[in-house]
Amino acid sequence: MNEKDIIRKYFTKQLNDQSVIEGIGDDAAIVKASSGHELVITTDMMVEGRHFTRYAPAFGVGYKLMASNLSDLAAMGASPRWATLNITLSTLNQSWLEEFSNGLLTCAKKHNVTLIGGDTTRGNQLNVAIQLIGEVPKGKAMLRSGAKADDRVFVSGAIGNAAAALDFLRNHDFSYNELTEKQFSALYMPPSRVELGMELREIANACIDISDGLLNELEIICDASKAGALLQLDCVPHSQNVNIMSAITGGEDYELLFTVPEDSVNHIDLLSAKYYCELSEIGRITNTMQVELYQGNQIMPHPKSSGYDHFNKIVDE
Amino acid sequence: MNEKDIIRKYFTKQLNDQSVIEGIGDDAAIVKASSGHELVITTDMMVEGRHFTRYAPAFGVGYKLMASNLSDLAAMGASPRWATLNITLSTLNQSWLEEFSNGLLTCAKKHNVTLIGGDTTRGNQLNVAIQLIGEVPKGKAMLRSGAKADDRVFVSGAIGNAAAALDFLRNHDFSYNELTEKQFSALYMPPSRVELGMELREIANACIDISDGLLNELEIICDASKAGALLQLDCVPHSQNVNIMSAITGGEDYELLFTVPEDSVNHIDLLSAKYYCELSEIGRITNTMQVELYQGNQIMPHPKSSGYDHFNKIVDE
Repeated sequence: MNEKDIIRKYFTKQLNDQSVIEGIGDDAAIVKASSGHELVITTDMMVEGRHFTRYAPAFGVGYKLMASNLSDLAAMGASPRWATLNITLSTLNQSWLEEFSNGLLTCAKKHNVTLIGGDTTRGNQLNVAIQLIGEVPKGKAMLRSGAKADDRVFVSGAIGNAAAALDFLRNHDFSYNELTEKQFSALYMPPSRVELGMELREIANACIDISDGLLNELEIICDASKAGALLQLDCVPHSQNVNIMSAITGGEDYELLFTVPEDSVNHIDLLSAKYYCELSEIGRITNTMQVELYQGNQIMPHPKSSGYDHFNKIVDE
Repeated sequence: MNEKDIIRKYFTKQLNDQSVIEGIGDDAAIVKASSGHELVITTDMMVEGRHFTRYAPAFGVGYKLMASNLSDLAAMGASPRWATLNITLSTLNQSWLEEFSNGLLTCAKKHNVTLIGGDTTRGNQLNVAIQLIGEVPKGKAMLRSGAKADDRVFVSGAIGNAAAALDFLRNHDFSYNELTEKQFSALYMPPSRVELGMELREIANACIDISDGLLNELEIICDASKAGALLQLDCVPHSQNVNIMSAITGGEDYELLFTVPEDSVNHIDLLSAKYYCELSEIGRITNTMQVELYQGNQIMPHPKSSGYDHFNKIVDE
């Protein structure tokens, strides 16, 4: 089985997309972008031993890889269109490839993404990456930098479920078959709020997806917007299996954190009903340049770390 | 030094591109495509221990990574625009990052490519990948599948130089500092015939870049075009340090192999002069479905392998 066979067997199942002029198979793919739109481009990768273990369910790894990239486009308000895939395989395990590609393409199909190309090679460590291209009407993308004083801060869904499922796995020696369906979904099938993002671009001043902890992402919005925020911890919907401090610093929620002007707040209830998605007001933007945490009327100390950084622990050579 | 510092320090040096609305720093990048064009998208990666050794010059690794992706766009006749970069680092070696980013951005600048985003993480094995987006006027891209019987087959430059330099390295225990400047260039600074590709799209029926051996690429063109070819080995310009059979099966030339109708052949001389680039007629397309090799009037047997495949040697589990 050579590179071409791998691609043909596992990654060319879909492809019925009028915008794709040439898909997988030539030196490069050719696609037709929509007029009046800008392109929105993101990439995210997952490495065995860092983002998942050797025994992690391959369907979940594939699904999550696509979902985490989709989440970045959702946070910009873009509609996803085309993806390329890079895979470094350590062994040619066909059942792994079958499940991985099923997970990836299931998630892609759900959000109308077409896989148009990629590169496959060998290495010592399994490494998978997606590059995703979306479109947004000209000038309509949501940035992190648009938050304004007095904006209300909202979060979609509930947070901490992925962190709780990961805790469970750690305490059960990474026995994946002990995960409940809900835990499996929280860890491997995160929401990708694509349709919500596309509606929010008409209302929200700033938006980010929560990949590395809600508190960390709120700090990023404040930093980019030269603003501060009050975060009301009692209002943050979170998993009952983690405390609130772990919930706001745990990673991989892939929910949207966004700010809207006060006079658009009643729009949010409509969106919540339309997408069957809890949208909770959890605080407001201030002009203090600091993020302050409140429980009731009481100000709370910040946790030691507000999120996750892949490089904090690397010692410089 | 965290992920953000790495990106800021090494990968945001350029960025003066009017088409880039948001570059590195938000959830995704935003760019403005040109009207009347199609997007051309490719991705290529390089893995330590497979595409380069631990001691390979980092400038060269970065330059070559960008150049190999550019070569794919050149083969489509596209003009390169925007790139994203994925890096998996095993250690945080700042001098490596400094040289790698210099190589990558030097090549990018030469061809007007802007780095607009990426993802950086840790792993056991160094792994670098570029996704490159270009543009081509609507309907003008060159495919592999367009070759027609009686087309003349051309190759740019000379082939086998990278294979010869790699042979030299193997025979000198991978002592990179023994490479001559010419050998270093052949291995790490391949040509990327971008401007040539953009002119050829007006003339050529089919085009491919030579990454895995000239003979292999000619077979791909014939296969895609449902045609055959005569390859006149005496006419193939090649390094004096490898025999012709090694030259046509050695990898990483990154020259263009293309076919043009007979009545466009005299255009080719003009292009050769314009780009100071040898363009040699090396054969013609036939309707036999086979690639036949000739030396003078004598038909030659095919070499055992016509090129390189990353997966041929992986044993199926």
